[in-house]
Amino acid sequence: MERTLAFETIEKIGKKIRLCGWVDRRRDHGKLVFIDLRDRSGIIQIVGGGELGKLQPQDAVEIIGKVQKRPKEMINKDLVTGEVEVKIEEIKILSKADTLPFDMGKDWLELELPTLFDHRALTIRHKTIKAIFEVGEVVVDVFRKSLNEIGFTEYESPIIVPATAEGGAEVFQVKYFDHKTYLGQSPQLYKQMMLGVFERVFTVTHAFRAEPSVTTRHLTEYTSLDAEMAFIDSWEDLMETAEYVVKEILAAVKKQCQEQLKLYQATVPLVSKKIPRLKFQEAQEIIFKRTKRDHRREPDLGPNDEEEICRWAKEEKGSEFVFITHYPVKKRPFYAYPDPKNPDLTLSFDLLGRGLEWITGGQRIHEYEKLVENIKKWGNDPKDFALYLEAFKYGMPPEGGFAIGAERVTMKILGLKNIREATPFPRDMERVDIRLSTIQEAKKRNKK
Amino acid sequence: MERTLAFETIEKIGKKIRLCGWVDRRRDHGKLVFIDLRDRSGIIQIVGGGELGKLQPQDAVEIIGKVQKRPKEMINKDLVTGEVEVKIEEIKILSKADTLPFDMGKDWLELELPTLFDHRALTIRHKTIKAIFEVGEVVVDVFRKSLNEIGFTEYESPIIVPATAEGGAEVFQVKYFDHKTYLGQSPQLYKQMMLGVFERVFTVTHAFRAEPSVTTRHLTEYTSLDAEMAFIDSWEDLMETAEYVVKEILAAVKKQCQEQLKLYQATVPLVSKKIPRLKFQEAQEIIFKRTKRDHRREPDLGPNDEEEICRWAKEEKGSEFVFITHYPVKKRPFYAYPDPKNPDLTLSFDLLGRGLEWITGGQRIHEYEKLVENIKKWGNDPKDFALYLEAFKYGMPPEGGFAIGAERVTMKILGLKNIREATPFPRDMERVDIRLSTIQEAKKRNKK
Repeated sequence: MERTLAFETIEKIGKKIRLCGWVDRRRDHGKLVFIDLRDRSGIIQIVGGGELGKLQPQDAVEIIGKVQKRPKEMINKDLVTGEVEVKIEEIKILSKADTLPFDMGKDWLELELPTLFDHRALTIRHKTIKAIFEVGEVVVDVFRKSLNEIGFTEYESPIIVPATAEGGAEVFQVKYFDHKTYLGQSPQLYKQMMLGVFERVFTVTHAFRAEPSVTTRHLTEYTSLDAEMAFIDSWEDLMETAEYVVKEILAAVKKQCQEQLKLYQATVPLVSKKIPRLKFQEAQEIIFKRTKRDHRREPDLGPNDEEEICRWAKEEKGSEFVFITHYPVKKRPFYAYPDPKNPDLTLSFDLLGRGLEWITGGQRIHEYEKLVENIKKWGNDPKDFALYLEAFKYGMPPEGGFAIGAERVTMKILGLKNIREATPFPRDMERVDIRLSTIQEAKKRNKK
Repeated sequence: MERTLAFETIEKIGKKIRLCGWVDRRRDHGKLVFIDLRDRSGIIQIVGGGELGKLQPQDAVEIIGKVQKRPKEMINKDLVTGEVEVKIEEIKILSKADTLPFDMGKDWLELELPTLFDHRALTIRHKTIKAIFEVGEVVVDVFRKSLNEIGFTEYESPIIVPATAEGGAEVFQVKYFDHKTYLGQSPQLYKQMMLGVFERVFTVTHAFRAEPSVTTRHLTEYTSLDAEMAFIDSWEDLMETAEYVVKEILAAVKKQCQEQLKLYQATVPLVSKKIPRLKFQEAQEIIFKRTKRDHRREPDLGPNDEEEICRWAKEEKGSEFVFITHYPVKKRPFYAYPDPKNPDLTLSFDLLGRGLEWITGGQRIHEYEKLVENIKKWGNDPKDFALYLEAFKYGMPPEGGFAIGAERVTMKILGLKNIREATPFPRDMERVDIRLSTIQEAKKRNKK
């Protein structure tokens, strides 16, 4: 018999069907037993007697039964299939689950983060966790589609790189046969090279930062949504493209993820018709005026500053987003384009949303000599950038781009407290699936 | 003035327009000078006098001029814009190119592979190289769309892994703070864990193999298109899904990549209504009969065998594809499902196309105890697979999946001789962008 999915039951009242799925919950009401069966399409209630009593949460089962209307007082309006149920006829256990280490049948999975990740293969099955990945998928999907719409082409960016592009010690080393290579901190240099092929490019890739600190905003491996475009008329073209992509993402999440937003009692961030723009120094002045904290000589905004300027944008401009532009040269990478009006500043921007950086971007230096000069100024050897530099030696028009941290977008839309929750298998200083201390122990064990 | 793209000129005859792009070629005919201008949409001919004479290949330029019909004898039928040209009025050089190290203006880029990759930022701009990435993008895109169509959900699989999943020494080590971690050889364990969330999942990820040999078929970093599905009725469901995806890819390439196929004088592979299936041992017998090479005691097919069995399929079945099934247990990973009829064999398959493996797949062991037993049998410690094993401890139905090597598909469709050509930035034992010997030299230089 063809398999029926949970959500298809509403159109099969009176019919005998075959369902496959996992037991999500069991409720015993005297002789009557109810099962919430979960499959990829949703939940359907199964009703029966003693034969259902032996089922345990997370058992994988196949069920044959008849779809029937629920009695009026039993209708569940919160469930797509809430007007029907399936009266059991046959049941086959495909895989019996062991006793769970905690209750997965609650509406909200109240676990401490370490437990949540120690049992990740199990906890990801909960509807509140699944909802996070569903939002995450829309974010990536809309990034892709919205850029395809306006002439961008996707390419695959390499992960293993020969040298560290952005400088800094926060890079993971890869033993590559007899050589040292690294995990890319961003696809920056590659997306710039690809401009010569497609002129407008993007990539969905993983970026790696060996930041030796544990914060709620950083992962050591994260999904970077990177775009780059050539033949810009002004660096403001880049901000406009970034703004367009963010608005497309928010609109799609609002439309496609109503259930997920409801689970998290979340709303997509307010976005004004045009996202307000502040120069870095203007932002510092506003923060000083509002808080009396004087960070006006700092070269960057701290986490508190980012939160404060977002509060300002919401209160004064009705926007939960704000662009901060013209960051100082010394806090930007070697390829950032200096502001012709003030060479200490760059034609760069960050998009802050709900107190956190979502996007970073800017115009890049496209003049070969300037780039060589800056590589030296940043303490690197142009010979290590030979391949990259060829892209500029042989004709590169004005260009720039931006990068979106995918997990941050999901985190901020749903109001998650920790970015680790926004990815199925988070990596940080202390964990790569299992706690790293466990790996040490395993190594000792294997040596014995 | 708004920018016009090359392919839009055909609808703007008589109009003054602004174009941006790279000089692809220059042809001087006495006082008349012709430029092929390249932008992301294609090529448009620019016609003018001496002012065009100073332009060099790969210069990035902005041109203002008037679109006019070409004289009848000058029409180029091979070009989308071949009936028009743009009479130059103004020209602005956005970025002057240095003298090229070789002629990029030829129809075919006749370079040795090392030169092709030593100057990759330049060579990728050639239309024949661009065509490869265009086909590659369709392959990935259709993999994604065809699986979305049938209820699969995409997720992001991690690159850094705590232990080696598939065994073997061919793994890259990552220095992770004070710990040893690795680059994933495949997303296998993660896609299986994700079944509990979405039931049908796929990922577009990079996989890493530290194979200490240089062949025309292997990259150390490649794009793996991985799918996995639960609640299968039979392992043959997996082959059918793989066949569906391949057919969708071929149909899309045939439809969308006519120009690219023409450039390579390539045709998409012949595929019969149902791809022929041979058991591993049957394939060995056929190869023996046809070649008298007796490999019937080998546990796997060698490259020559794969080519031979593909010749057989084409000659005997009119198909450039053939499924080989029931590979021996000893050549498959620990999670491969043993054939109930013969426990030395597995319910696994490879799809061979044009002499090469495109896809590998099979049913997986979903029973917790069997899996633990096999992990031990393969010489590993179940404790190192604790997270993974939880997915099976708590109810996992029969399941399986497959993985497609994206670059191999592109390579075989276009008839490329070397898989390195199928990716913009190939990595192998000898090269990570630059030749690895160069890195050694740079290190010495930096130490001085």
